[in-house]
Amino acid sequence: MNTRFYNARILLTEDDHSFRIVDGELWTKGNSIAYIGDGSDVNSAPGLGDEYVTARSIDCNGNLLIPGFKNAHTHTAMTFLRSFADDLPLDKWLFDAVFPREGQLTEDDIYWLDILGIMEYLTSGITSNFDMYFFPPKNAQASVDCGFRTVQTSGMNNFGAGPEAVEENYLKVNELGKSSDGLAKFIIGFHAEYTTSMERMEGLAKLSQKYKSPTFLHNSETRKEVDECIERWGKTPTQLTDSLGMYEYGGGGYHCVYFDDRDIEIFKEKGLWAVTNPCSNLKLASGIAPVKKYLDQGINLAIGTDGPASNNALDFFREMYLAATLSKVSENDAAAVDASEILYAATAGGAQCMDLGDCDRLAVGKKADIVMIDMKQPNMQPENNIVKNLVYSGSKSNVRLTMVNGKVLYEDGKYDIGFDPEEIYAKANAIIGRMK
Amino acid sequence: MNTRFYNARILLTEDDHSFRIVDGELWTKGNSIAYIGDGSDVNSAPGLGDEYVTARSIDCNGNLLIPGFKNAHTHTAMTFLRSFADDLPLDKWLFDAVFPREGQLTEDDIYWLDILGIMEYLTSGITSNFDMYFFPPKNAQASVDCGFRTVQTSGMNNFGAGPEAVEENYLKVNELGKSSDGLAKFIIGFHAEYTTSMERMEGLAKLSQKYKSPTFLHNSETRKEVDECIERWGKTPTQLTDSLGMYEYGGGGYHCVYFDDRDIEIFKEKGLWAVTNPCSNLKLASGIAPVKKYLDQGINLAIGTDGPASNNALDFFREMYLAATLSKVSENDAAAVDASEILYAATAGGAQCMDLGDCDRLAVGKKADIVMIDMKQPNMQPENNIVKNLVYSGSKSNVRLTMVNGKVLYEDGKYDIGFDPEEIYAKANAIIGRMK
Repeated sequence: MNTRFYNARILLTEDDHSFRIVDGELWTKGNSIAYIGDGSDVNSAPGLGDEYVTARSIDCNGNLLIPGFKNAHTHTAMTFLRSFADDLPLDKWLFDAVFPREGQLTEDDIYWLDILGIMEYLTSGITSNFDMYFFPPKNAQASVDCGFRTVQTSGMNNFGAGPEAVEENYLKVNELGKSSDGLAKFIIGFHAEYTTSMERMEGLAKLSQKYKSPTFLHNSETRKEVDECIERWGKTPTQLTDSLGMYEYGGGGYHCVYFDDRDIEIFKEKGLWAVTNPCSNLKLASGIAPVKKYLDQGINLAIGTDGPASNNALDFFREMYLAATLSKVSENDAAAVDASEILYAATAGGAQCMDLGDCDRLAVGKKADIVMIDMKQPNMQPENNIVKNLVYSGSKSNVRLTMVNGKVLYEDGKYDIGFDPEEIYAKANAIIGRMK
Repeated sequence: MNTRFYNARILLTEDDHSFRIVDGELWTKGNSIAYIGDGSDVNSAPGLGDEYVTARSIDCNGNLLIPGFKNAHTHTAMTFLRSFADDLPLDKWLFDAVFPREGQLTEDDIYWLDILGIMEYLTSGITSNFDMYFFPPKNAQASVDCGFRTVQTSGMNNFGAGPEAVEENYLKVNELGKSSDGLAKFIIGFHAEYTTSMERMEGLAKLSQKYKSPTFLHNSETRKEVDECIERWGKTPTQLTDSLGMYEYGGGGYHCVYFDDRDIEIFKEKGLWAVTNPCSNLKLASGIAPVKKYLDQGINLAIGTDGPASNNALDFFREMYLAATLSKVSENDAAAVDASEILYAATAGGAQCMDLGDCDRLAVGKKADIVMIDMKQPNMQPENNIVKNLVYSGSKSNVRLTMVNGKVLYEDGKYDIGFDPEEIYAKANAIIGRMK
């Protein structure tokens, strides 16, 4: 599966969160990037001598190679509820539409619904997801079967199995990761403070310490959630979970819309990740996360789509656009949040958040999780600033090719994931059809 | 150029702003829709007997035909400043980056920059634009040369020619419309109260009465604009312009972010159009327009991208998404604004706003301004609610074909507008390159 990309422009990520573009070639070997350069010295590069056989050469025709987007918070299999019950008050949506139908899902359903979501990720240049849903080993299996990279976490709360099941899933998914060339991984997590008992949260904290795992949860998504947590425990969700010893090995929160100064201090001290979900926060009327403040304070930032029932798309261009522009309007400052910070969060930030440091950028030795962006479309012209073009005018229509772990899974509208799209669409319609 | 679309799903627009989808065929004859039905009675339909020759039959394969989107406010030729000076304070962006470069534009420059914008419109399913920029006859010529439908207005202010030039452009562009099968039209307008003298505004009002034309302007885009207008004239921009007799024949405002109750009353009484520009309002930190209030009050709503320098894309899916979801977050109500109201505003609303009532929906006798949406992509599945799929998860990548005035101008990533895309990209880069 060695691939040589030539006539390419290649987006290189700098440690100061800026980017630089070089012309040249990028060669993959197995699941990794083996060479980036102008091509003149490729034969003397380590591992690229006579023993290297190019399976395929791709003329990029001046198009741009970028690191894949990392979707740092989602519930992939919720594809079945896309557009099912929108434009309703939040409680009605959740209790009347979502929960009763989630309760009817089988493991098999979830497998097919995951594959629909993975297809959508590929169309948007997303090369890995940080997924929280029922049956994590099944979700992981769906990803591995497609050749897609996934990090699973647990959505444990009071309504299902407890920390012992999280441990079981942790072991199973990480085992699957070993037998699948590292495509699957599990990080400790649970749903949220407002759905989880103190006993279970304490059990979870112990588990994270036992396995030296970071811990993630929905954190401060709504004003109500924070107010009720303070009422119950005298502490914000961040301060409460921190006091339980959950973050000894890092972790972070999904959404992070309502943080006070002490919450921000804790995130900073512990190097935790604020994963922002701008589309979902708009559509569910949750609020606008203080992204500018997080960046100003040096908080680690990643971006997620949340699930397709609350978004309703899995479109990283839309997320990037909103992560940048919502801060501008909420801060009343057109200069708030630079596009390059957002592109960094969408790629390197997400990768580090998900413990995928070897997928964070295009560099020799890194995993070959690569997207080719079509620059020959009007929304990418003129080329005054390519990073800003990506964040402010980029679109899924610019995604020509998505490669994960050295394999091209999506190219020019076609999938190479081992499943027929029509069959997947039929399965998804049948699953929700059964529940109407 | 008669075209038969078969195996189609066809989105029909109802007067109550809802939509209905029928399976069947849509036939165009010349520039209009000649038949919609199941195909069984097509030979007996008026004008579709023996004399009808199908130039092309298109198997829609179950995909969806929708009326084209109407971009009800834009400055098309500003493509040259896309990503040129983003993430700057508004004044710096406008005075240091935009104005000095706009001053260097020639008519010829604008022609090529328009064509770049028109290409982008076609990729997004936009079939007509309401365009305000320098040299309206040249903008109109660019549209007509591409086969694209345009409504031009004037951006008159204190820094160029006055009402007499608006009149000249009105006559020229409407004349061009007559010789181009109705592809071009001119509606009276000017830039904004804060850039235009009382004398010129009065002249404009007289012109609108002379020609019985609606009048449009940038209205209440920023808080500052409204405050300063009140300081100058003791009235909001809406109340001031209304008092000058500008709206005797209708019209409306672009942006309409900061309206008081009396402004809303005037818009309602006179049947004026609020054209919302959500992406631009975010990116320039202007604010969030009260779209829910407008809909609740029965104000006419249309949607626009604004210019590509302040957006930075010309992507109607992004505009629709934000027109709906920004109201949810600003009203703190996930039920605020239904997707079908937004799809109506994006199609029929925009058409009526732009005096293109004959392009507002798919129906026999209406102009054939049609878009084919690819439903066989994961973001459109499952099909729980196709209207909500279009607004909340739709993307430019779903646009398979864009037809204007009965001619397919864009299909599967290729343009049939008489220009080579690479040449247009080169021109745009050269124009801004000259100014750096």
